[in-house]
Amino acid sequence: MTKKSYPLSKVYGLLEPGPVVLVTTTGIDRPNIMTMSWHTMIEFEPPLIGCVISNRNYTFGLLEVSKECVINIPSVGIAEKVVGCGNTSGEKVDKFKRFSLTPAPPALVSAPLIKECFANLECRVVDTSMVSKYCFFIVEVVKAWIDPAMKNPQTIHHLGNGNFMVAGEKIKLKSNMK
Amino acid sequence: MTKKSYPLSKVYGLLEPGPVVLVTTTGIDRPNIMTMSWHTMIEFEPPLIGCVISNRNYTFGLLEVSKECVINIPSVGIAEKVVGCGNTSGEKVDKFKRFSLTPAPPALVSAPLIKECFANLECRVVDTSMVSKYCFFIVEVVKAWIDPAMKNPQTIHHLGNGNFMVAGEKIKLKSNMK
Repeated sequence: MTKKSYPLSKVYGLLEPGPVVLVTTTGIDRPNIMTMSWHTMIEFEPPLIGCVISNRNYTFGLLEVSKECVINIPSVGIAEKVVGCGNTSGEKVDKFKRFSLTPAPPALVSAPLIKECFANLECRVVDTSMVSKYCFFIVEVVKAWIDPAMKNPQTIHHLGNGNFMVAGEKIKLKSNMK
Repeated sequence: MTKKSYPLSKVYGLLEPGPVVLVTTTGIDRPNIMTMSWHTMIEFEPPLIGCVISNRNYTFGLLEVSKECVINIPSVGIAEKVVGCGNTSGEKVDKFKRFSLTPAPPALVSAPLIKECFANLECRVVDTSMVSKYCFFIVEVVKAWIDPAMKNPQTIHHLGNGNFMVAGEKIKLKSNMK
């Protein structure tokens, strides 16, 4: 594992720009991967994340049972694999094999990290009160990883129907916001 | 008003890439503006949006009372004003005046649109069950507007501490995802 531990207090900066992410869960006979865009930070530290995982997705049942997942953040370099994971169901397909993605061992949860993603957030489900109504899970990040070898990774952001925006230039403004 | 009505079924494509937005509410003696990054789509249509509005923000109380807001999406051209709105409190400052932003009349809610933003989503609060625990409001978009004169607006995306990513190039991938 060439990734290094990342401070939980900085996790919000990875997710609040709205990247497409890959959610891994442990499956019945293999782990699964789901592509997700509907997520938001809920709290800074410990980092809480709210995410919509439809009950039409195979991941929904796996997450309900295991109560654990990893939120993996890909860069544009593996955009085709990200879309491939979104176009297939883990019920029929081993997505790690199909898309040549590499499972890496987590520290605190059961679901694997995806090695090819530049950041990985190990999460535990902490609130399911909005699941029946909105398929909205609240998870807590218990461990975060970053790949120091990937400088300035460009995230991808879904605009609907397979159109994506690729992260562009960075600017610094005089903000008091955290 | 040079903006045109925008289909509610397409609203998710504006918000799921994670832009920084400006939330307007009606105030006691003037409308207010808040800068927000913590939001997610919850449902396609009617579009439901979940957003975290801290109870330390002046907007929190205004939204609790009025139950209505407008989510305005700015482009990088007014990034300094967006950060300015995030650095000040509406309790003391008339942000429309301070930052030379122009209120425009809404169709269905009480809060004003911001003319300088390329898209405006008129919203009503529909679920407050997560407000006491997480300051998490669920709002329904009841009317959406887009500025057809602003071609290819570049949204801004907060990375923490005043660092922003500006929306870059667009790519099209073969996706079955909505």
